[in-house]
Amino acid sequence: MRIGETHWRTIWPEADGSVGIIDQTKLPFAFETVTLRGVADAARAISEMLVRGAPLIGATAAHGLALGMREDPSDRGLEEAAIRLMATRPTAVNLRWALETMRARLSALPPAERAEAAAALAAEIADEDAAQNRAIGTHGLEVLRAIAAERGRVHVLTHCNAGWLATVDWGTATAPIYLAHDEGLDVHVWVDETRPRNQGGHLTAWELANHGVPHTVIVDNAAGHLMQRGEVDIVLTGTDRTAANGDVANKIGTYLKALAARDTGVPFHVCLPSPTIDWSLASGADIPIEARDPGEVTHVRGLAEGGVVRAQVTNPGSPAANPAFDVTPARLVTGLITERGIAEPSRQGLATLFPDRAA
Amino acid sequence: MRIGETHWRTIWPEADGSVGIIDQTKLPFAFETVTLRGVADAARAISEMLVRGAPLIGATAAHGLALGMREDPSDRGLEEAAIRLMATRPTAVNLRWALETMRARLSALPPAERAEAAAALAAEIADEDAAQNRAIGTHGLEVLRAIAAERGRVHVLTHCNAGWLATVDWGTATAPIYLAHDEGLDVHVWVDETRPRNQGGHLTAWELANHGVPHTVIVDNAAGHLMQRGEVDIVLTGTDRTAANGDVANKIGTYLKALAARDTGVPFHVCLPSPTIDWSLASGADIPIEARDPGEVTHVRGLAEGGVVRAQVTNPGSPAANPAFDVTPARLVTGLITERGIAEPSRQGLATLFPDRAA
Repeated sequence: MRIGETHWRTIWPEADGSVGIIDQTKLPFAFETVTLRGVADAARAISEMLVRGAPLIGATAAHGLALGMREDPSDRGLEEAAIRLMATRPTAVNLRWALETMRARLSALPPAERAEAAAALAAEIADEDAAQNRAIGTHGLEVLRAIAAERGRVHVLTHCNAGWLATVDWGTATAPIYLAHDEGLDVHVWVDETRPRNQGGHLTAWELANHGVPHTVIVDNAAGHLMQRGEVDIVLTGTDRTAANGDVANKIGTYLKALAARDTGVPFHVCLPSPTIDWSLASGADIPIEARDPGEVTHVRGLAEGGVVRAQVTNPGSPAANPAFDVTPARLVTGLITERGIAEPSRQGLATLFPDRAA
Repeated sequence: MRIGETHWRTIWPEADGSVGIIDQTKLPFAFETVTLRGVADAARAISEMLVRGAPLIGATAAHGLALGMREDPSDRGLEEAAIRLMATRPTAVNLRWALETMRARLSALPPAERAEAAAALAAEIADEDAAQNRAIGTHGLEVLRAIAAERGRVHVLTHCNAGWLATVDWGTATAPIYLAHDEGLDVHVWVDETRPRNQGGHLTAWELANHGVPHTVIVDNAAGHLMQRGEVDIVLTGTDRTAANGDVANKIGTYLKALAARDTGVPFHVCLPSPTIDWSLASGADIPIEARDPGEVTHVRGLAEGGVVRAQVTNPGSPAANPAFDVTPARLVTGLITERGIAEPSRQGLATLFPDRAA
């Protein structure tokens, strides 16, 4: 998407075979790119969250495996690279999907052909993600158009960053927003700051500002009040893993917003490319929830006089806990917006859109 | 309550007629007291939140009016001091209650007697608040004892600071917790950090740590997940204003936690001294919600290398909105814990406990 007048993706191949990414831990206070030269770089980029967002984690893992094939294309090299990348983050299922897709194709090839094939396959996975998000955008756009036709405007509330920075391009929850804005609908976005890591205030606000979409940052606590007051027309979020019954694991706090949407009659849609669906999971209860460093709760990154600081924002000495995701049950979801259309949030709803994949 | 081995209140008369307070904007990174010498000092202490919390706002306004009577005990002085103090914060009804109580009593006296009477009356209002909170504690303790008897432990979740720092002493939501801890129950508190001003992470964590109560700070987003996982036995919050039907206005985000409690079957109790009840309001829909400075959303106060900083935590240039309270409807509240016992959250429930005040 746009940064000023330039079009960017979040991940791209360089001419020398290395892979470029935007270092998202530096945003919004600095824009820096990083070059990944091997599987260790890619694994670090995922685990330290230079890249994040389920679809982008998948694409980075694919590119990481391709870098691994340049280092060691043997069966053992393939195995070790996949294991190393798989261990970086536990919740997003796109990671597993991308690695399994790559391994299945690469293991059938002789080692000498793997590096080139892997690079091509990683690029294909990245292109496919961008295309899927664009398609999510067109389906979601219909929903936003219907609201705009009725109310003359659309106030969207979104949580975390399910924007283009979380994907290869377009974003999941933001794809309908960008398309709506570009065709002239009066769209405004309430951006949950999304503690603890502030991906809303840091990343979503940054990308909406760069694209020129009107938006307002709020604390996570404010979403319910705005819905009670009729200030929210629709909630759009992403998901890190969707169970076969339509339960969705997404950034911690999504469940609270879904409850408020239900209580106030606001539609709550989840936007997802199909690799985010874990067909092996009967319900969200089985989705592993990552417990991250409590330091993300006790400290924040911000811009103070003199530069970027890491500041403690809790009572020194008080312990903290940091569950990174929660599960929103399908009963609270209005629709699952996928690249094939909008599914009812149920086993049957998903199976109807994806008869080729549902068990 | 305890800071180390010393017992403190949040507000106290000094020998020279001035009034001492703890500067809560400095906590938890520094402990400083401030002396209020006139009505202007008191108004500034409330509006700039050196003191906050509905009961403490009321007590500070009472002491402020007493300081005003030392400056100008005329009818006009009384009128002007009351108007000035009334304008400091819009949501907490204790402010109005304290000022009206003081004015009714003082206006009946000749000006020459007002300064002394006002100081005595302010001290009485402060003592009464401490006693009311202690009584709330004994009623709430019964609820915590029942949970402990069944489960062997009590995990309380609380939002914002309804602790002794929000009152003259004991706190509202914390009074049952301190009593339970002091009698040896295995009580642990999940402390919502409570963005934007972080009164949970700054104040509640600080006072629980100083009293030795086990606690864990979480981001506001995490409360629902913990309830889904059975990690919360009860939610205890305060309220800034309670309508006659039991709807409660409290710190922004309270509504979201109440929704999660209802969805997961966790009891949700609101602790309040009766001056927090606005008998003139039929429902919470009429409670004015303070819109505070968006700078509280875009910037946080924290401790970095070299000292306390104010750091921007959102994309520079992105606008922000800052509604400070929300209304939790009575239907989501399990019980209203008052100094007279636990009321059902309804007009009839409150009227049964307070037949002398209900209209």
